[in-house]
Parts: sequence; C-alpha cells; structure tokens
Amino acid sequence: MREVFQQELREVQDRLVEISTLVAASIENATRAFNESDVSLAESVIADDDRIDEAVLALDELAINILARQQPVARDLRIVVSALRISASLERMGDMSEHIAQLARYRFPDKVVPKSLRSTFEKLGALDVAIAHKLVELLTTQDVRLAEEIRNDDDKIDALHLSVFDKVLGETWKGAAVDTVDATLASRYHERFADHAVSIAKKVQYLATGDWVAAELQQ
Amino acid sequence: MREVFQQELREVQDRLVEISTLVAASIENATRAFNESDVSLAESVIADDDRIDEAVLALDELAINILARQQPVARDLRIVVSALRISASLERMGDMSEHIAQLARYRFPDKVVPKSLRSTFEKLGALDVAIAHKLVELLTTQDVRLAEEIRNDDDKIDALHLSVFDKVLGETWKGAAVDTVDATLASRYHERFADHAVSIAKKVQYLATGDWVAAELQQ
Repeated sequence: MREVFQQELREVQDRLVEISTLVAASIENATRAFNESDVSLAESVIADDDRIDEAVLALDELAINILARQQPVARDLRIVVSALRISASLERMGDMSEHIAQLARYRFPDKVVPKSLRSTFEKLGALDVAIAHKLVELLTTQDVRLAEEIRNDDDKIDALHLSVFDKVLGETWKGAAVDTVDATLASRYHERFADHAVSIAKKVQYLATGDWVAAELQQ
Repeated sequence: MREVFQQELREVQDRLVEISTLVAASIENATRAFNESDVSLAESVIADDDRIDEAVLALDELAINILARQQPVARDLRIVVSALRISASLERMGDMSEHIAQLARYRFPDKVVPKSLRSTFEKLGALDVAIAHKLVELLTTQDVRLAEEIRNDDDKIDALHLSVFDKVLGETWKGAAVDTVDATLASRYHERFADHAVSIAKKVQYLATGDWVAAELQQ
C-alpha cells in the first residue's frame, strides 16, 4: 500500500510538472505575441488554455481519488492537499497568460502599449517567463533556492508594475484612454501571474521545511 | 464516528457561513466607502481583511484535520475538499473588497470615479453586495435557486463591466489618466468579486446535485 501511495504521489508531482510546463509555454508565447503583435500566436495561446484547464481538472480528480483510496495523514495529506492548491494557482497563471494574449489580439495590428512603455513590458514579460521556468524546475527538483529566486523576481515585477502607474499617471504621458486601460490591465495580469507563482513556491518551500501554517499566513 | 463526522461537517459549514458574512460586511462597507469617499470606513475594511484571512486559515486547518482523522470518502470527501476551495474563493472576495477600499483611500478626498461613471459603479457595488448576501444565504440553506440568482447577477455585472470600457474608450470620455486607471481597476475588482461568488455557487449547486466534474468544467 505504502509503495503504491509513493508511486501515486510521484504521479501527482509529474502532473504538476507537466501543467507548469504548459503554463511556461503559454506565457512564453503570450509574451512574444504581446511584444510582437503576433495575432496567430495570441490565438494559439487562447486556444491552448483549454489544455491547461483539462490537465488541472484531471489532476484534481486524481488527487481526490488518492485521498479517498489511500487516506493519507500528516505530511502525506498536506502534500495531496497542496497539490490541489498548486493546480488551482497554475490554472490561474494560465488564465493570466491567456488575458495577455487576448490584449494582443484585441489591439492587432497595433501594439498593445505605446513606445514609452514597451521596454517595461518586455522586462515584465521576460520576468514572468523566467519565473515560469523556475517554477517548472522547482516542482521537478524541490530545490528551495528556486523559491527564493522566484520571490526576488516577483519583487522586481512589483517594482515594474508600480513604474507603469508612475508613467501612466505622470505628466509626460500622452497615451489615449485605450493605452491607459491596456497598460493598467496588462501590468496587473503580469503581476498576478507572478503572485500565483510565489504562492506555489511558498507551498513547495514549506512542504520541504514542514512549517505549513507559516506558509499559509505568508500567502 | 459517523455522528462526530456529521457534526464536524456542520462546523465546516457554519464557518463558511461566518466567513461569507464577514465578506458581505466587507463589500458593503467597501462599496459605501467607494461611493461616499469615506476614508475611515475604507481603512476599517482594509484592517478587517486580516480577520477574513485568519478565519480562512483556521477553516483550512479544520478541514485538513477532518480529512486526517475521519478519512471521508465519496460525497463526504467532496464536501470537505470543496470547503477548502470555497474558503480560498471567499479569501479572494475579501481581497477584491479590500482593493476597492484601497482605491477609495488613495483618491480621498476626491471620489474614485468621475460623475459620468458614478451611477454605473453604484450599480456594480449594489450587485456585489446583493451577491454577497445571497452567498451567505446559499451557504446557510443550500437552496440552489440562489446559485441561479447569483449567476444572473453576475451576468448583469459583466454587462456593466463592459459598459465601463465602452464609456472610458468612447469619444465623450474626458477623464484624466488617473480616472481611466481607477475605472479600469475598480471595474475589474467588482467583476472578479462576482466571479468568485459564481465559482462558489457552482460548487454548492453541484454538491447538491452530485455532478462534480461538470461543476469544475464550468468554472
């Protein structure tokens, strides 16, 4: 029984890695679609989000199945419950990526943000992509140093997110209302993408250290 | 054992009702603070969000405890797992309410949105408040007709949310960039608040009907 359970936990972990890999591909493509106004790439990101949602649903069913059949306790139980939460966060990361792609599609053939903000959004996109790849690695290796790196990247994203508002609300901003709306939403989506990654990283980190309550409080 | 378990499930349900009641008070106050630029009310909403977060954390610990001790299967297991998800959605509803209050605080003594949008935001706020109260009742009574009502209210919110963009992107919009940013964010927070309520309503509805997979797919 115990061996079957360990095998099932590995299956859960493998599925989380698979889903995070889909999310990493999604944000990579969404970022490229956003920066380069590539409408067909944007459409493929939007279409592919269903695959993420289905994989999340299948993983959740597996986790609930494991709870029912194996009746884990203590740390094993925490692992399965945290898998349910991690999958929910991955699903939202996929949604944020889809929203970024939708902005690219709406504004096509124009770019989503005016020139003065383009380098800021390139940095935001590159950081989200980096975070997504680190998350894949963290879920694969449970190397908690990656959790720390994800937090640091998130701090950079928060600073860039604030700088978008400084720019948009500054005296030199000449953008039309549509530019202001798009910059506001795009910045928020990038920031939320990273927030979900931090929330996952904390769960993995504290599962490794065992301090579950602190992990939740810090969310 | 069975009786203890039923009692514990009732405790979970009671806690969900309690948390949803806190969320309803939060959105009610946030809406008033937002409409009337009441900065001290906004600050109390922001401060009170900690109470929601703590209640969610305590409920999650209780639910995990029940999983460990009672090892429920089948429908009972779904109820406990769904409680974990419902609490996560309630926590996010509290966050959206806090964000609405934060906008009121940032712009004080000004109002957050210009006159031309004020009645739209009054309707958005009133619908979110109505949804929150229906959610308390749904969690209390499991009367699935309320789930339907929440969905209908959410449709109205989606239409108002789109109308905010129509206004802001229309030719008659004279708002400054700060008004555009605030209207964009405030509208998104109101819309997300309702989305989370719909997601909870679906879980309650399908727990009542037993069709869990459909509930997840429709999220």
